[in-house]
Amino acid sequence: MSTLLSSFTWEELRHRTSAKWRAYAPDVLPMWVAEMDTPLAPAIEEALVSALHRGDTGYADAGALPEAFASYARRSYGWRPEPEPMRLVPDVMRGVVEVVELVTAPGDRVVVHTPAYPPFFSWMRRIGRTVVESPLARGSDGYEVDLDRLERDLASGAEVLLLCNPHNPTGRVFTHEELHHIADLAERHQVRVLVDEIHAPLTFPEARHVPFAMLNSPAAADSVTFVSASKAWNLAGLKAALAVPGSAAQPVVAEIGVEVSMGAGLPGVLASTAAFEHGQGWLDQLRGELDANRRLLGDLLARHLPEVRYDLPQATYLAWLDCRELGLGDDPAAVFHERGRVALSPGPGFGAPGTGFARLNLATAPERITEAVRRMVAAV
Amino acid sequence: MSTLLSSFTWEELRHRTSAKWRAYAPDVLPMWVAEMDTPLAPAIEEALVSALHRGDTGYADAGALPEAFASYARRSYGWRPEPEPMRLVPDVMRGVVEVVELVTAPGDRVVVHTPAYPPFFSWMRRIGRTVVESPLARGSDGYEVDLDRLERDLASGAEVLLLCNPHNPTGRVFTHEELHHIADLAERHQVRVLVDEIHAPLTFPEARHVPFAMLNSPAAADSVTFVSASKAWNLAGLKAALAVPGSAAQPVVAEIGVEVSMGAGLPGVLASTAAFEHGQGWLDQLRGELDANRRLLGDLLARHLPEVRYDLPQATYLAWLDCRELGLGDDPAAVFHERGRVALSPGPGFGAPGTGFARLNLATAPERITEAVRRMVAAV
Repeated sequence: MSTLLSSFTWEELRHRTSAKWRAYAPDVLPMWVAEMDTPLAPAIEEALVSALHRGDTGYADAGALPEAFASYARRSYGWRPEPEPMRLVPDVMRGVVEVVELVTAPGDRVVVHTPAYPPFFSWMRRIGRTVVESPLARGSDGYEVDLDRLERDLASGAEVLLLCNPHNPTGRVFTHEELHHIADLAERHQVRVLVDEIHAPLTFPEARHVPFAMLNSPAAADSVTFVSASKAWNLAGLKAALAVPGSAAQPVVAEIGVEVSMGAGLPGVLASTAAFEHGQGWLDQLRGELDANRRLLGDLLARHLPEVRYDLPQATYLAWLDCRELGLGDDPAAVFHERGRVALSPGPGFGAPGTGFARLNLATAPERITEAVRRMVAAV
Repeated sequence: MSTLLSSFTWEELRHRTSAKWRAYAPDVLPMWVAEMDTPLAPAIEEALVSALHRGDTGYADAGALPEAFASYARRSYGWRPEPEPMRLVPDVMRGVVEVVELVTAPGDRVVVHTPAYPPFFSWMRRIGRTVVESPLARGSDGYEVDLDRLERDLASGAEVLLLCNPHNPTGRVFTHEELHHIADLAERHQVRVLVDEIHAPLTFPEARHVPFAMLNSPAAADSVTFVSASKAWNLAGLKAALAVPGSAAQPVVAEIGVEVSMGAGLPGVLASTAAFEHGQGWLDQLRGELDANRRLLGDLLARHLPEVRYDLPQATYLAWLDCRELGLGDDPAAVFHERGRVALSPGPGFGAPGTGFARLNLATAPERITEAVRRMVAAV
């Protein structure tokens, strides 16, 4: 069977117009932003081509997407969110920003586990909220929630915890026990939990994704979860995500304005609906290929760059590389780019624990992962 | 030659998933939100289908869009905006909001000619700015700028004037002389002019669209113009527009954050680029059909609903109907909907001068315009 991640040559991919392929010079191998080198799932391409042919390109409406996600959540996790109270938003980040604005006031404190998705910091600054970095700890098995630290941070007068699970960039899938502790702490300190579960469909077989909203806890009832097909089916440029309220958070989500929902893209709605309804087979194949890629990277690093510390991610296609022993300074990605002509995401953008780190995107052909490591070695 | 606006039957259009076709029951004829019943221009459909086939669905980048618009502006108006300082935004409204936030503080006053695009009011409320309604006047030839009133409103401590030209919903294309007076007033009272020119490609032959930025005036140099292919080529759900700075406004537009540009849709960028580069023939045909439709509506109203006052729009496909003599109350659209099963946009959403008015969308087959008037008559 032909593979998804090797469907296109580098030369073919260079004709793409998305950010991944536009930001760097043509001789730089782009391994940064979360886009994949796959073709679209056939069901998605068919749905979109059909919509274009019908001239169906007007303002977005949530349409069948909430029901499609609810059904996917039921099949995948046994989670049964109600479709009706879900609200369409352009993307997860925009949805988080919207709800943070609804449930907090300027100056309020928002806790986030770091390392964290870089736009989160700039968005919170824009809306005048204070980001409290609560670093993950490194246990014997890789990253884990530092519950003592989290408790101190939540107790510091925080209003919101942004929980990203599975976690970007570390690839950790938090356990039921960890989530339960987090929920307890949130309840004790009356902190609202907003949950980014965009990477959940990309969980590997050895881990199990537990939707936070499924916990038997008041914090889960008060939570708002943000989901999207954009990461797992490569739809970032099509702009559609959902805000899914816990049972006690429906009034908050109902306040998300229609002007926010109309910022979503209709192709995003249609593509996401097709993904959740008919994209499972494609996703299963993709996960198999990504599983091989994450192991390939481990082998390559062990052989050629043993100073780089890398935990096999339990989900998603992002590899979080501790490059501190390479002695490349605070931003190893800058050195890899300049000297090696390979573009990774700079670690310092992910908060304080990102100093000396870089993030590498594994959603590409195995030979391009090999080439990326070759270029990293050349840069050192 | 087959027509664009009659390409699809009502039955076929009902399968569309956009807001126009989802908001009302299936027996209601939708004549409201600014979507058109056309197929896509072939060049647009080809560009999008090709992108989907390449899996080119990652994060949006402005790509070739600024150059494509600059070239279109040169050919269409003799306007020569520089492409490099333009910034990609998801839509015109979002771009306006962004720049209002950059150049004003909470509580500041933003002047808008009313009637005005309804989301403008809700957005300004959201960001804590005060909307100052400056009503257009009715002269012998239809709506015109009330310069005395505008001067008073600008002098009242306003920071920004939002100028929509061609004007939605009245269809007025402001003359060079009107624009010149507006620029003088803005300069005198040190008010920044933000210009929404989204309807410009839909100007009819008897009028001439003058880009505000082309005026020889400090207010034009300080202005920011927002343009998009979304209205003229029916791409509202694809999410792409440009902020185009006047020569002295580049620093402001440069401050538009990358997180805002990444809210745009990649299909929107590609479709808009194709529209500006290769969409002229399609647009010319569309304007011919819309020209016939605006006259058809005039004939139908004169014959069947002579109490409704309607000025032939000089641009775009929106008919602003003064229904006050029908005695249907503040919101005639509610009556047309309930009793006639035809959906127009409610006038009161457009500000104080919208009381007793409704807006009708002409971008549909002539027989559906006839049917809409039949239903309006039935409701009266």
